[in-house]
Amino acid sequence: MAVKSVNDLLIDELQDIYHAEKQLVKALPKMAKKAKSDQLRQAVEHHLEQTKGHVQRLEQVFEKLDARPRAKRCEAMEGLIEEAEELMGEVTTPEVLDAAMIGAAQKVEHYEIASYGTLSTLAQELGHTEAARLLEQTLSEEKAADQKLNEIALSGVNKSALQAAA
Amino acid sequence: MAVKSVNDLLIDELQDIYHAEKQLVKALPKMAKKAKSDQLRQAVEHHLEQTKGHVQRLEQVFEKLDARPRAKRCEAMEGLIEEAEELMGEVTTPEVLDAAMIGAAQKVEHYEIASYGTLSTLAQELGHTEAARLLEQTLSEEKAADQKLNEIALSGVNKSALQAAA
Repeated sequence: MAVKSVNDLLIDELQDIYHAEKQLVKALPKMAKKAKSDQLRQAVEHHLEQTKGHVQRLEQVFEKLDARPRAKRCEAMEGLIEEAEELMGEVTTPEVLDAAMIGAAQKVEHYEIASYGTLSTLAQELGHTEAARLLEQTLSEEKAADQKLNEIALSGVNKSALQAAA
Repeated sequence: MAVKSVNDLLIDELQDIYHAEKQLVKALPKMAKKAKSDQLRQAVEHHLEQTKGHVQRLEQVFEKLDARPRAKRCEAMEGLIEEAEELMGEVTTPEVLDAAMIGAAQKVEHYEIASYGTLSTLAQELGHTEAARLLEQTLSEEKAADQKLNEIALSGVNKSALQAAA
């Protein structure tokens, strides 16, 4: 697709993150299954439910913009998930894997923070106030998820990883 | 490589970001060449010099940890760069491409912010104070680069994009 205008760019970016979120819906259960820490597993399961909501919210955004919801292959999220799955195969100590998965999940969150940041700015600048509001809502949830992962790492997971492998 | 301990995880993550930074050193000049806005081109060129410094700083970190500097294929950065290059081929309006490249560059910055955040925390927790200090220094520079890109978008690039394609 040729991208000529800012509106085309907005649609292109929406199609990218739509594919990314859909990939995440498939990837998160594997991560939850591997988590040793209850707190981490619960956080991943909670974020899975949120992510399903983000997919639906993107469909609302497409609707507000009179565009058909279409996913466009997101190579970046593919790479992020590939890397996370590689880690799951490499890390042999469960407590260390928890710490590793937090790092991988934060990379995913940061991809989404950057993407929704751009999306909400572009929607706002194009005057799509309602779409911008929906995108900002997801942006806040991604930032909160990243913050939550930080807290889980610092409140015990990293310590358990250090002790398990000492 | 089997990752058994937090120290192994730290080395594994260092090898990943070492590869990522080296890929960036190759990718950033293409972005600078495509930039229409002088401010954006200068920012990308400045960040290229910083990125070369980050590669060297990572070599110092490997040294502090008595590890050999080794790059491990970073699929996430490969995906991020692939996506940025795809955009460069798709966006036909130069001013819109500037806005698109800012978004792509911010995704790259956010990958690095997440990675250096984890790295500096792990180094600190393992008691590698000097390595942690070096990693935090790069983390600050990545955050500042992301902030700078935001400012460039809001101070004129996005407006030019909207006008060019109106």
